[in-house]
Amino acid sequence: MINEMKKIFIRIGFLSLLFCSGCATVATNTITQTSTIDALLAGSYDGSVSCRQLLQYGDFGIGTFDRLDGEMILLNGRIYQVKADGAVYMPDPSVTSPFASVCRFVPDNHFTLQSKSDYKMIQETIDQAVPNKNIFCAVRIHGRFASMKTRSVPAQTKPYPLLADVTKNQPVFNMESIQGTIVGFRCPDFVKGVNVPGYHFHFLSDDSTRGGHILDFVLDEGNCEVDVCHRFLLVLPEGGKGMEHLDLSLDRTGELQKVEK
Amino acid sequence: MINEMKKIFIRIGFLSLLFCSGCATVATNTITQTSTIDALLAGSYDGSVSCRQLLQYGDFGIGTFDRLDGEMILLNGRIYQVKADGAVYMPDPSVTSPFASVCRFVPDNHFTLQSKSDYKMIQETIDQAVPNKNIFCAVRIHGRFASMKTRSVPAQTKPYPLLADVTKNQPVFNMESIQGTIVGFRCPDFVKGVNVPGYHFHFLSDDSTRGGHILDFVLDEGNCEVDVCHRFLLVLPEGGKGMEHLDLSLDRTGELQKVEK
Repeated sequence: MINEMKKIFIRIGFLSLLFCSGCATVATNTITQTSTIDALLAGSYDGSVSCRQLLQYGDFGIGTFDRLDGEMILLNGRIYQVKADGAVYMPDPSVTSPFASVCRFVPDNHFTLQSKSDYKMIQETIDQAVPNKNIFCAVRIHGRFASMKTRSVPAQTKPYPLLADVTKNQPVFNMESIQGTIVGFRCPDFVKGVNVPGYHFHFLSDDSTRGGHILDFVLDEGNCEVDVCHRFLLVLPEGGKGMEHLDLSLDRTGELQKVEK
Repeated sequence: MINEMKKIFIRIGFLSLLFCSGCATVATNTITQTSTIDALLAGSYDGSVSCRQLLQYGDFGIGTFDRLDGEMILLNGRIYQVKADGAVYMPDPSVTSPFASVCRFVPDNHFTLQSKSDYKMIQETIDQAVPNKNIFCAVRIHGRFASMKTRSVPAQTKPYPLLADVTKNQPVFNMESIQGTIVGFRCPDFVKGVNVPGYHFHFLSDDSTRGGHILDFVLDEGNCEVDVCHRFLLVLPEGGKGMEHLDLSLDRTGELQKVEK
């Protein structure tokens, strides 16, 4: 009788665990994003979501950190921070992010990329593989790169400048003959103001010592995997805290183009 | 021993039920939307999500139906269809929608509205109650209306015309001294292209016989409840099916203004 009771409690415990884990995580084919790109462009750099929380939304993604302290790469469930000194750090789970896009990466398509492809050519290749531009894609490219040019951004102090002003003097990193992974997204045009329409890629080297926001590259050889996502979850700070005074009605397309390049 | 086994199975069953229901539903403070307003403006009227599925995302909301067959009001977990003949129908759970916004309505604010308030004045009152325009609000107003002016739209046949062309000849319904509920949302400016920036209200009379997309009204007396939502889930058809050939890069603000008024 006592043994039976024990079994009951074990089963209840197991099922409760399943229940809780099922609800804490987000379904596949869902890109979850914190805050908006226009809030970031407007200088809203205070982190609102912890790395610990981000990992509940996915194992793959990109973003930045509290006070704009570097570029985020989330790969295979681990968060990497490429700071303005060019080095890669593993942030504490309590470190927060003001802007990040993540998903649980389950590739739908995979294909070999042509040697000597650059950023523009690879975008065209992915567009051929997933011609529907009105759907979201998470993109993972692993390969050897003849060249890889990235940037990072330094932590800012208040009053925060606009992002387009920060990136005027961004540190740029030129790498050669480097193996690593491109992590990023292709978003539909209609996300304008919310995320980056088109492609937005970050890079992390295989030895986790180099990386950043990609400006350009030339691939020697590599493979591309695409996870086509039809759900997009926007998570703002609760009650919109910290967003009260942002004018998010402006068209910041010009600022975004300056910042991305 | 057999009784104990029975109990185990009962408990497993109960917890499994909890598990499944927990995952099928969406958290509070989350507005879930199917497709985009610009896809609808572009004439994408084929339903992609059933009423049955919509009810998993919430008990409150607005939208339209497959082939643009009327205005949707989702109130207290029931879906109502105001067709172009002005009558209100209860659609079968299998009927689909090409565009809808829903949430699980849990009000954060409630206040009494001033007598003789019109649509514009009530928007100002809600803006004073929730001044942060960068957050989503679900709005429920129950009251007695001196006048209520709504419209609906008739089901379309292929090739579908643009929404702005459909609404040129929309049937308009003028009601007087009518009790009922306004159901709708206030969305931030940055949803442009995805949903309607600002206010978007539908109406259903208390006796469920009249309603539609609100063009104007004058309130006699009523109460307003607001659910401030910081999460926004966009659900597109899987793989973006049916959206392949839509040009969603255009600025359709002008078309939207024609359609809403």
